[in-house]
Amino acid sequence: MASDRPQSGEDSLIARYFKPIATDPGAFGLTDDAAILKASGEDIVVTTDAIVEGVHFLLDDPPDTLARKALRVNLSDLAAKGAAPAGFVLTLALRAVDDAWLTSFARGLGEDAKHFDCALLGGDTVSTPGPLTISITAFGRVPEGKMVRRSGARPGDRVMVTGTIGDAAIGLAILKGGAVAAALSGDAAAREALVGRYRVPQPRNVLAKAIRDHASAAMDVSDGLAGDLTKLCAASGVSAAIDVPSIPKSAAAAELLARGVVGIEALIAGGDDYEVLCAVPEAACAAFAEDARRAGVALTSIGTVMTGTERARFLDGQGRDIELKRLSYSHF
Amino acid sequence: MASDRPQSGEDSLIARYFKPIATDPGAFGLTDDAAILKASGEDIVVTTDAIVEGVHFLLDDPPDTLARKALRVNLSDLAAKGAAPAGFVLTLALRAVDDAWLTSFARGLGEDAKHFDCALLGGDTVSTPGPLTISITAFGRVPEGKMVRRSGARPGDRVMVTGTIGDAAIGLAILKGGAVAAALSGDAAAREALVGRYRVPQPRNVLAKAIRDHASAAMDVSDGLAGDLTKLCAASGVSAAIDVPSIPKSAAAAELLARGVVGIEALIAGGDDYEVLCAVPEAACAAFAEDARRAGVALTSIGTVMTGTERARFLDGQGRDIELKRLSYSHF
Repeated sequence: MASDRPQSGEDSLIARYFKPIATDPGAFGLTDDAAILKASGEDIVVTTDAIVEGVHFLLDDPPDTLARKALRVNLSDLAAKGAAPAGFVLTLALRAVDDAWLTSFARGLGEDAKHFDCALLGGDTVSTPGPLTISITAFGRVPEGKMVRRSGARPGDRVMVTGTIGDAAIGLAILKGGAVAAALSGDAAAREALVGRYRVPQPRNVLAKAIRDHASAAMDVSDGLAGDLTKLCAASGVSAAIDVPSIPKSAAAAELLARGVVGIEALIAGGDDYEVLCAVPEAACAAFAEDARRAGVALTSIGTVMTGTERARFLDGQGRDIELKRLSYSHF
Repeated sequence: MASDRPQSGEDSLIARYFKPIATDPGAFGLTDDAAILKASGEDIVVTTDAIVEGVHFLLDDPPDTLARKALRVNLSDLAAKGAAPAGFVLTLALRAVDDAWLTSFARGLGEDAKHFDCALLGGDTVSTPGPLTISITAFGRVPEGKMVRRSGARPGDRVMVTGTIGDAAIGLAILKGGAVAAALSGDAAAREALVGRYRVPQPRNVLAKAIRDHASAAMDVSDGLAGDLTKLCAASGVSAAIDVPSIPKSAAAAELLARGVVGIEALIAGGDDYEVLCAVPEAACAAFAEDARRAGVALTSIGTVMTGTERARFLDGQGRDIELKRLSYSHF
């Protein structure tokens, strides 16, 4: 990504919309072919996530929320890995240049870049005959060797999760219309809150240091709690028992569940939560909970890491296994 | 990018095709949410380039060459910045999983990753209803503060370029059929060589240290020599005078030019060359030329950096200005 005279359409687009967000000195104001990321003796954590129109977002989603979501899904990975944001690069595949769209997109991106202290370092803007595609590679810093892996969970650790689970899946269901939208037709505030959870995730970056200090393993919940927990367990060579009634739900989600409008599987295999799922040794739980309280992030214990390699069990209030037909979203 | 039991289609795809390329310990075998890039006191150079089906490559381009091109356009940026490759992340937006296609793609990618010592660190594989899109963010290392910028060219510096210019543009013209293809209808070897230059760029990474040691400014020629030189001059606050007959051309390109099948503008504003364009102080030219000779890379002096901020001039054999209608390729 580079902008300079003589300006092609692409250069002018970059200078106008993205240069103001490229506040890090290593971005060189987007006037070079590459950026510099300073490491200062720390490890650089690298994560990349793309969102595609019609797959990860809807055509009429507001551009500023698309920008926020594209950045936040990456920030969520950094948070779960215990890393402090250090910057990002953006690849934007656009069908055409729409000034109103780009103005809104760049405003949302710039506000989030500032809020999360994660400046734009560079990128590439290309034309596409197909769907709008936004790909972000984000960087974080952790003290050397301190990235929190998926693989450190040990039997006896508590399984904990931030925030609430399932709201984003319900938000998406509302946008698609159907039974969920109908069930909430009289409650605009609930609809807006749930749709907001789908469109603008709340990555838990304020908790990154606490996760690094206390968690034995962590990942963010992006494809569905059930599937993501299963992955964490597999990476750690353990199993888990989850007390499903303990899984934190918003009031709206709990009501829809109680009314039978949605099933538990829709919530725990739905994805797009962008909460942190982690394993925490018993001895560290109190200190972790205190850090979360100070950071203003809800933290809930939902189960226990077990020995064995069988798939994690999801148990109802009577300790009976809940059969899940699917665990998470998969692209293929 | 992560692979682990239970395997979704996406996880299985990653484990099968991409895990073998993820040889760096910081990639964690693609089983985590993020990778670790070690800096070891050096600066990390970050560059990102995407290629889109129908825009940057053709539907029937062989998948292994697509993989090579996607990686090499990024390696070319690293080379021009004087950086040693340190790894890359891949975002692949696919319409469907085609095993034959992925096998070929992964083979090309893996061979190049090994050859250029640039391992896969992570990525994201998503489905798209639109064109195949391959986005790579690549990392390099340079000693602290030593990345070669666009902005360091000074009046009196020689303008130098590696390899030959214009072959890739001719290669693309051949693939599109028309006059250029017809003119070469009897010469399969020339056609193949020129198409090869379009499909598989030859990034000049062997020259990275020499560029760092000797060049005052550098960038790779991706959008067209004329436009890219104009950008380098603008970033440096200088102008330049280029002796067009000195611009290095392959025998095939020179012949097509002499026969009037292509014009000079097609060669110097055509793009996709992925050669290094740089400014070199007079005193460093001999040592740089010697380094290039040892590396086996052709290096040609094509002009001089001048004072002033007017657009770089392209002069014919009689010192007359050549008017260029366009300088380079622009997406918008």
